[in-house]
Amino acid sequence: MRIGILTGGGDCPGLNAVIRAVTKSLIQRCGAEVIGIEDGYLGLIERRVRPLSWDDVSSILAVGGTILGTSNKATPFSWQGRDHSGACAEYVRDLQLEALVAIGGDGTMTIAQRFGEHAGVPVVGVPKTIDNDIEGTERSFGFDTAVATVTDALERVQTTGQSHGRVMIVETMGRYAGWIALEAGLAGAADVILLPEIGYDVQQIAKVCRSRAARRRSTLICVAEGAKPAGGELTVESTIADSPDPIRLGGVAHVLRAQLQPLVNAEVRATVLGHVQRGGSPTPFDRVLATQYGNAAAHLLQNRDYHRMVALQRGELSSVSLNEVANKNRLVPPDHPLLVCAREIGVCLGDD
Amino acid sequence: MRIGILTGGGDCPGLNAVIRAVTKSLIQRCGAEVIGIEDGYLGLIERRVRPLSWDDVSSILAVGGTILGTSNKATPFSWQGRDHSGACAEYVRDLQLEALVAIGGDGTMTIAQRFGEHAGVPVVGVPKTIDNDIEGTERSFGFDTAVATVTDALERVQTTGQSHGRVMIVETMGRYAGWIALEAGLAGAADVILLPEIGYDVQQIAKVCRSRAARRRSTLICVAEGAKPAGGELTVESTIADSPDPIRLGGVAHVLRAQLQPLVNAEVRATVLGHVQRGGSPTPFDRVLATQYGNAAAHLLQNRDYHRMVALQRGELSSVSLNEVANKNRLVPPDHPLLVCAREIGVCLGDD
Amino acid sequence: MRIGILTGGGDCPGLNAVIRAVTKSLIQRCGAEVIGIEDGYLGLIERRVRPLSWDDVSSILAVGGTILGTSNKATPFSWQGRDHSGACAEYVRDLQLEALVAIGGDGTMTIAQRFGEHAGVPVVGVPKTIDNDIEGTERSFGFDTAVATVTDALERVQTTGQSHGRVMIVETMGRYAGWIALEAGLAGAADVILLPEIGYDVQQIAKVCRSRAARRRSTLICVAEGAKPAGGELTVESTIADSPDPIRLGGVAHVLRAQLQPLVNAEVRATVLGHVQRGGSPTPFDRVLATQYGNAAAHLLQNRDYHRMVALQRGELSSVSLNEVANKNRLVPPDHPLLVCAREIGVCLGDD
Amino acid sequence: MRIGILTGGGDCPGLNAVIRAVTKSLIQRCGAEVIGIEDGYLGLIERRVRPLSWDDVSSILAVGGTILGTSNKATPFSWQGRDHSGACAEYVRDLQLEALVAIGGDGTMTIAQRFGEHAGVPVVGVPKTIDNDIEGTERSFGFDTAVATVTDALERVQTTGQSHGRVMIVETMGRYAGWIALEAGLAGAADVILLPEIGYDVQQIAKVCRSRAARRRSTLICVAEGAKPAGGELTVESTIADSPDPIRLGGVAHVLRAQLQPLVNAEVRATVLGHVQRGGSPTPFDRVLATQYGNAAAHLLQNRDYHRMVALQRGELSSVSLNEVANKNRLVPPDHPLLVCAREIGVCLGDD
Repeated sequence: MRIGILTGGGDCPGLNAVIRAVTKSLIQRCGAEVIGIEDGYLGLIERRVRPLSWDDVSSILAVGGTILGTSNKATPFSWQGRDHSGACAEYVRDLQLEALVAIGGDGTMTIAQRFGEHAGVPVVGVPKTIDNDIEGTERSFGFDTAVATVTDALERVQTTGQSHGRVMIVETMGRYAGWIALEAGLAGAADVILLPEIGYDVQQIAKVCRSRAARRRSTLICVAEGAKPAGGELTVESTIADSPDPIRLGGVAHVLRAQLQPLVNAEVRATVLGHVQRGGSPTPFDRVLATQYGNAAAHLLQNRDYHRMVALQRGELSSVSLNEVANKNRLVPPDHPLLVCAREIGVCLGDD
Repeated sequence: MRIGILTGGGDCPGLNAVIRAVTKSLIQRCGAEVIGIEDGYLGLIERRVRPLSWDDVSSILAVGGTILGTSNKATPFSWQGRDHSGACAEYVRDLQLEALVAIGGDGTMTIAQRFGEHAGVPVVGVPKTIDNDIEGTERSFGFDTAVATVTDALERVQTTGQSHGRVMIVETMGRYAGWIALEAGLAGAADVILLPEIGYDVQQIAKVCRSRAARRRSTLICVAEGAKPAGGELTVESTIADSPDPIRLGGVAHVLRAQLQPLVNAEVRATVLGHVQRGGSPTPFDRVLATQYGNAAAHLLQNRDYHRMVALQRGELSSVSLNEVANKNRLVPPDHPLLVCAREIGVCLGDD
Repeated sequence: MRIGILTGGGDCPGLNAVIRAVTKSLIQRCGAEVIGIEDGYLGLIERRVRPLSWDDVSSILAVGGTILGTSNKATPFSWQGRDHSGACAEYVRDLQLEALVAIGGDGTMTIAQRFGEHAGVPVVGVPKTIDNDIEGTERSFGFDTAVATVTDALERVQTTGQSHGRVMIVETMGRYAGWIALEAGLAGAADVILLPEIGYDVQQIAKVCRSRAARRRSTLICVAEGAKPAGGELTVESTIADSPDPIRLGGVAHVLRAQLQPLVNAEVRATVLGHVQRGGSPTPFDRVLATQYGNAAAHLLQNRDYHRMVALQRGELSSVSLNEVANKNRLVPPDHPLLVCAREIGVCLGDD
Repeated sequence: MRIGILTGGGDCPGLNAVIRAVTKSLIQRCGAEVIGIEDGYLGLIERRVRPLSWDDVSSILAVGGTILGTSNKATPFSWQGRDHSGACAEYVRDLQLEALVAIGGDGTMTIAQRFGEHAGVPVVGVPKTIDNDIEGTERSFGFDTAVATVTDALERVQTTGQSHGRVMIVETMGRYAGWIALEAGLAGAADVILLPEIGYDVQQIAKVCRSRAARRRSTLICVAEGAKPAGGELTVESTIADSPDPIRLGGVAHVLRAQLQPLVNAEVRATVLGHVQRGGSPTPFDRVLATQYGNAAAHLLQNRDYHRMVALQRGELSSVSLNEVANKNRLVPPDHPLLVCAREIGVCLGDD
């Protein structure tokens, strides 16, 4: 049994833990050979693979990123203006791969399935998303680590806010789904949490800031990068128009800062966390989850239960058809218990 | 509406997050007055309580321990050789408490229910256990923090083990249930994980150590304090008999060290983590979980859904009758997926 | 003996440790009364002070920021268009303050001395700067914490860079002095470190990136916010002219990204750390240093050794005249051993 | 130029940073070949060495322990009952080593010098001690990391102590010198700090505990493993005699617990930190210091300035003759400013 494994899309804490668990489980359960494909689909196109032995994966559990490398853009069907799917399929046959493990987001797994059908090689998926927004699974590894990193940043910024009596805005990842901002906002004691799923009213936010300032309190705002004003797009044009100090680069945090500053008495400051949220060693929680996912993928492979993605459902390890996952985003539903909880402990969600 | 709240038993990261969420939710949802009872049941006996306002609980989310204090031994029914239940019931009536929130372990909640019946005051429970072994809930707050602390310690000890080629033993909490040792052992890349639920065979462990030493590798052993040899108690007598260097104080880690040393070539060293595992600021995961539990307890109170404990079941917030919780320990079942996973990635569980 | 104490300028980890040590030392050594002035000089203008007791400062050692609050802009001589120095001097006399402890940067201490002379109240200074650039002392508290925060961020960004084979730029504080970028760059294994003191040549940096990319390695660049190209200012105009994608907001990191991208094959990404660098709990090193500074300030006060700033010189606690400190910045000298060391272990400093 | 490098004695965070800096500096400055000797002197005896290239040391800066391995007991002059110095000298000549870098404690460097004279190979030393007690240098790498680990543990234990109103004892490393207990005790806000250099009076400690308990406060005691009662040895016999519950294993923390418990009203608990203090990734401070030491060692080598140890003196990099270092311990002097400072902020040092 020879199995190929690749990591695709943006990097994420816990990728190595999955690689380790898949590899060890396959070697121990069925003496399989595991072939690591380098830099995601680019490794198929450029024919760069390497075998993974037990020892190769023995010390990588806690290491951030992926020892295989990854790429965001290359796919077998399209790279540098050409279709490479035929050559990639041939390469997979040359390598005598019996199946492929694709660790990645929605996009990586959709491509994997399409390529798998094309090349006649079945696929097993492992969900990977910092944003926790892959359909079909309740939790993806890397999310807990990202939440921990953002929470730590919120706490650091909080002390500055309190010392100066400021309004502090911290922008987190989350273009479509607000899970990171929601959980980190709760864990970091943010006073205002803004999600892509809930349009915000800057007047409401300003009211919170003013009311807190009146009691000599700073305000901490945790905003997902995809958050927008209710009923309005956050465009470069609107931004420039609305603000005396035109803003080009910089996303919602800087826009919100420009919107809020005239409405409040305190100084408003913005921080965009950026790439630090993807990196670093996974938390223990993510190490265990990623290890379980890797082990579960090995089970699917051994049972030849293909075209499925491992998943956490109702708190238990499970799997779901790759078809159910494609082209969907798991957003924060408007009645989610965490939203109710947030409102009831006094957090402003920007909408009332 | 006046609600009393107390924390009982050993301290645990996240207690303050629960107190904060209960208090804020009750104030905001129904304008309740919240009365904090100091030092667990001792506060009822010694008539020490204080009101908790919104501001009192505003900055405690990330603070370890409990602002209310706790005690391990006092109960209304028995303290310093006397029964205080009558006086405590009277005190509760004087305070005009409509209900009681008991945050604690199995013991604390059982007493709460018994006292509640006696005093005519209904009870809502919030499960608290570092060990994650309360029946009726899949996860208790504080557990993730304890796992993180132990994982960090395992990683520190690992570097020493590797530099010296030693066998390193780290003893964790877990007298009856091995959840901490299991999850931290997996997250900290332990080579051997020993739980109370699985009797160990020292010869098997020694075999692992020798085989690793032959490949110039150190061995990291993560052992729960309640782990025992298969078919044998770990008594002081047996210990002294088995070891040239008699050991009195010190639990399984030191015993195992004495048992292993003659069987392996490498130096064997033991560390007992002790109290550091209970303390410190809760992880973001635990802050969110504890906040949800506190909010859910407020819901139960407002719905007058009494004699229940908030719980996490099948990945969702829920509640369970206090009767179902009493006098039980949630142990690691022998076929638990994490055990299967551990074995399949090459971890020795001491039994084969 | 009544002593006033205030914190001025930007917040900094360790301020509370100084406040605690000054207060406890003064109370214990000479039974002094310590009066905390709120929000820096604003507290003198708005007549907001509070006494600090032993218990008030007992639990603040590890707390980030300042319990007294601070302000960046207010001075007795100029606030909201008016001179308040007369009223402030009167207030100080009303309070019967015998001396003033000013914890702050160069600016705060200069104002303190000027105001002290005006009001007839002697001053003792404690140096505070994240940037470690106050003249007269080798190390200021808060710097070690900032370096730790930046190092952590560099490590997180490093894993992303390595997984994707990118050039990652991280911008740190340091408008005039590059100490943070230098020490954190060394501790975080940056390949390129750019300081305000050394003009950079973007062609040299690009060469390093290309040479590393040729060996399939990512490049990590740590740049102080005040770094500039050799022989050129980094102005908005020049930036827009130099780059196809005009950049308005965002400092050197985004400029450098725009400059580098056309010269290298890899993707270039930039992160601006911003406010997270000032916040958070001080490291143990900073707690000890800040405690020693606070204690040393109490010694100066008791000895009536006024108009001096506590300092670390040649590795030992000392003090220096406030006159020697004013209007100077301690920059990284071009022959500093750390620069030599950095070059010799292969770090590019942008100039060759 | 061929240089051998070895690490001896107990492991320590920062060893890899030294190895990396020595290797990179020697390669870059003078194109030297660097030969890593495995497991300390054992590698000379068993003829196990490996060349260290630039890439070999490129990713080890932040890794705890030593990639070369170390051993505590083997020396060329004595190992398993035999003298191996002749064979080792021959091996060094075979390897054509021009000089030897010995990274280790007092013992490792003394042996290095003796062996160097015997084998005709000059030696440069780099001081390594968790305890910060090597003569001739103000600070050794690894110390800052150990202090940080102990401080973190103190903070965790503190929350438990406060929640329960207990007396908590934490035992740190430091058999002869109390630097770790002193600095970590200050940084972790210990109420009592006990050092080997100052005999303690258990009655004085009990008085502090009782006085704090009377104000409903817990007491945190940080004790170095080498601390002893004034005028008395801490022997097994005395211990057993003094305590109703005989203690065999376990050092001063457990003894002190037994001594204190009858004298105070609160529960007394003890934790022995043990091996966690040596391990883990070095702090940024230690990474920079270790890197500077490694670079300075390369300078000594290139200048053929042999038989010297790199050192930090009066806050600056320097070096000292190995003869001045041998057989000495740098203890905490009774008038050290940190001791004065500790007393003045209310810390009990056990002696008054």
